[in-house]
Amino acid sequence: MNALILQSDFGYADGAVSAMVGVAVSVCSELRIYDLTHDIPPYDIWEASNRLIQTIGYWPAGSVFVSVVDPGVGSTRRSVAVRMTGGQVLISPDNGTMTHLMQHGAVAQAREIDETVNRLPDSGESYTFHGRDIYAYTGARLASGCISFEEIGPEIPVESLVSLPVVKPKAQDGRVSGTIDVLDVRFGSLWTNIPRELFIGLGVHHGDRVTVRISHYDRVLYQTVMVYARSFADVNIGEPLLYANSLDCMAVAINQGSFSRAYGVGTGISWVIELIPEKAGRV
Amino acid sequence: MNALILQSDFGYADGAVSAMVGVAVSVCSELRIYDLTHDIPPYDIWEASNRLIQTIGYWPAGSVFVSVVDPGVGSTRRSVAVRMTGGQVLISPDNGTMTHLMQHGAVAQAREIDETVNRLPDSGESYTFHGRDIYAYTGARLASGCISFEEIGPEIPVESLVSLPVVKPKAQDGRVSGTIDVLDVRFGSLWTNIPRELFIGLGVHHGDRVTVRISHYDRVLYQTVMVYARSFADVNIGEPLLYANSLDCMAVAINQGSFSRAYGVGTGISWVIELIPEKAGRV
Amino acid sequence: MNALILQSDFGYADGAVSAMVGVAVSVCSELRIYDLTHDIPPYDIWEASNRLIQTIGYWPAGSVFVSVVDPGVGSTRRSVAVRMTGGQVLISPDNGTMTHLMQHGAVAQAREIDETVNRLPDSGESYTFHGRDIYAYTGARLASGCISFEEIGPEIPVESLVSLPVVKPKAQDGRVSGTIDVLDVRFGSLWTNIPRELFIGLGVHHGDRVTVRISHYDRVLYQTVMVYARSFADVNIGEPLLYANSLDCMAVAINQGSFSRAYGVGTGISWVIELIPEKAGRV
Repeated sequence: MNALILQSDFGYADGAVSAMVGVAVSVCSELRIYDLTHDIPPYDIWEASNRLIQTIGYWPAGSVFVSVVDPGVGSTRRSVAVRMTGGQVLISPDNGTMTHLMQHGAVAQAREIDETVNRLPDSGESYTFHGRDIYAYTGARLASGCISFEEIGPEIPVESLVSLPVVKPKAQDGRVSGTIDVLDVRFGSLWTNIPRELFIGLGVHHGDRVTVRISHYDRVLYQTVMVYARSFADVNIGEPLLYANSLDCMAVAINQGSFSRAYGVGTGISWVIELIPEKAGRV
Repeated sequence: MNALILQSDFGYADGAVSAMVGVAVSVCSELRIYDLTHDIPPYDIWEASNRLIQTIGYWPAGSVFVSVVDPGVGSTRRSVAVRMTGGQVLISPDNGTMTHLMQHGAVAQAREIDETVNRLPDSGESYTFHGRDIYAYTGARLASGCISFEEIGPEIPVESLVSLPVVKPKAQDGRVSGTIDVLDVRFGSLWTNIPRELFIGLGVHHGDRVTVRISHYDRVLYQTVMVYARSFADVNIGEPLLYANSLDCMAVAINQGSFSRAYGVGTGISWVIELIPEKAGRV
Repeated sequence: MNALILQSDFGYADGAVSAMVGVAVSVCSELRIYDLTHDIPPYDIWEASNRLIQTIGYWPAGSVFVSVVDPGVGSTRRSVAVRMTGGQVLISPDNGTMTHLMQHGAVAQAREIDETVNRLPDSGESYTFHGRDIYAYTGARLASGCISFEEIGPEIPVESLVSLPVVKPKAQDGRVSGTIDVLDVRFGSLWTNIPRELFIGLGVHHGDRVTVRISHYDRVLYQTVMVYARSFADVNIGEPLLYANSLDCMAVAINQGSFSRAYGVGTGISWVIELIPEKAGRV
């Protein structure tokens, strides 16, 4: 029996999540059902995409993720199921939720959900809650083995999946640049899309000093030299640091403070970050 | 093994929910335990009642719900177990938590919990946490088959259960009226107690224009013509719409906005909503 | 199969908890995994310690708790596993998280985690997420029986575990005094470290009137006479009461109000509370 993992922007305060779980339990009472998070900000497909790349690789092959951040519910947007190279499956509206998974080359195959057969019986008059009537129902049937991945619907080209605009990180002239993908909301750290490998390719080592420059639409909002640390414990409380986060990408934080709140930094491709090691002598 | 589903106003920040779950796991480690929500506003029996009608029908027969919104803990209010026509069971203080279930004719049988036998051993000196000592304990014993529904305690008349005041929706003179039962908190939609069937009985179809009038204690606070849409995608972003929600009742929303915040609309029987289709010519 | 229970200060909004759960499910897909809470305020070891004493005794022997409130991640602080006299196990950084468990004499044995063998394979380059790479991984292996408690690492003296400063409650001159350990955040009650047994040792009974005096750094901030009630239902709505909470310690509340918000009361050893029964005639 494979795990079923749910993500949405529904929050925890009403019954929407429980209705989805009830549908899944009705399909198969033996299912193991978990929450990724239901606190995705309403309609924020970008953040949903990030949370998936943050977690999906830690789950075993066969795990079925259902992600419902769906501003276009009831429109003509497709519903899809996507199989990862690691064997996990994601069921979601085709609206950009797979952006980061595709960016990382994690998507192996995609199918469009045939909603005429993969739909909770007698739910035909509800047009506003596909999370319950189609996604949770189909995810539970897939995770429990009632249907195979092939029975989801016809195969579609992976390249046809909707992707949000992304700026790739690059190394050039002794520095690396990328974008601020997401905040570690609880601790206020900035998580960039710059892989640690790309950064240490500049010849940097733990303890080196690095200029961190953050720009929004080409305007520099922050520039400071900080240490490339192994962990928070390498700097004093209140000091900034550059480190490799739990996704093995570069991140910026204040030890026991909130970098994002201190400097009003946001996320998305308009937020550019540059990392310039001191020894490169190019600041 | 039946599912055990917990609801309360305890929030997720302290250990109260986990103590309840621990008691249930101690009764039977094989139980499947789920949360409906623990974010019911403190003491808000009305909202607890709504969340149950929103979800209970999606869970299989035999599922045991435990709802603990209990401002009268330690008073003489009864503790009851109620069996639905669909075979699910709800355990709760008898304080109005069953209001909407009774209103929808979902309650088949009721029993008063005999607290002398259905109580966590050695919990006799705690008078403030029946959620843990009586409800979770008894719910777990019922869901796992340790006790039968009959062993809960003596049968009581369904009509004797406490019910909060409710105003029934009605159709008259080419219009329907009802009350605003609950908010879809995350998205700010208003959920009314007007069934879709009652509304379309006026001869309305998707795409028709309908006057929506909202009053609070007889004072009109909002009146606008909007479209009866199949889903949010039928109107522009920022436009209001009337639609059938996931409970098959009429609801009002702003596409990707918050209707309740935009117009300061609340819930309860003092909030009356009227739906007047244009072709009725009676606005 | 034993239960695995997770606590952290990660919140529910991002993917950190789900990554931990995914690691645990990858260890053993049959595990039952529960949340204590993930809403511990960031870095608040004191509150983490309180939530454990509030819940751990309600879980069966063999249950494995993982608590990750870890401001010193990456420093030289030890990682430990601690077995309770009740047979539950707690895995945590050795940073004071066990304070209240030790205070209550609940800790039977302690071992230091040997991180060279108890670490998620291929996680060697991540220094900032021991919750995922060491604690969840080791907790899952222990709960599922992959490793024994002895295989965690070498035994260490219980007395060597880090403990935060604590002030013991005491009875003297017909009164008891203690500290305000924690708030029941949702309902605003104050939970003290004064056991009911110590208080009723003064000869007090339900219904007696008691002077409650609260001081912060020796300055009296609140002093009022209230009733020692069995439960909230014994006083009017809006009235204060003294009662024995669900941990069998003394607590102060306002019926259906928030005592902590009304009087700005905080928690910790600088917040002293005295309970002086009227008949002692010593107010």
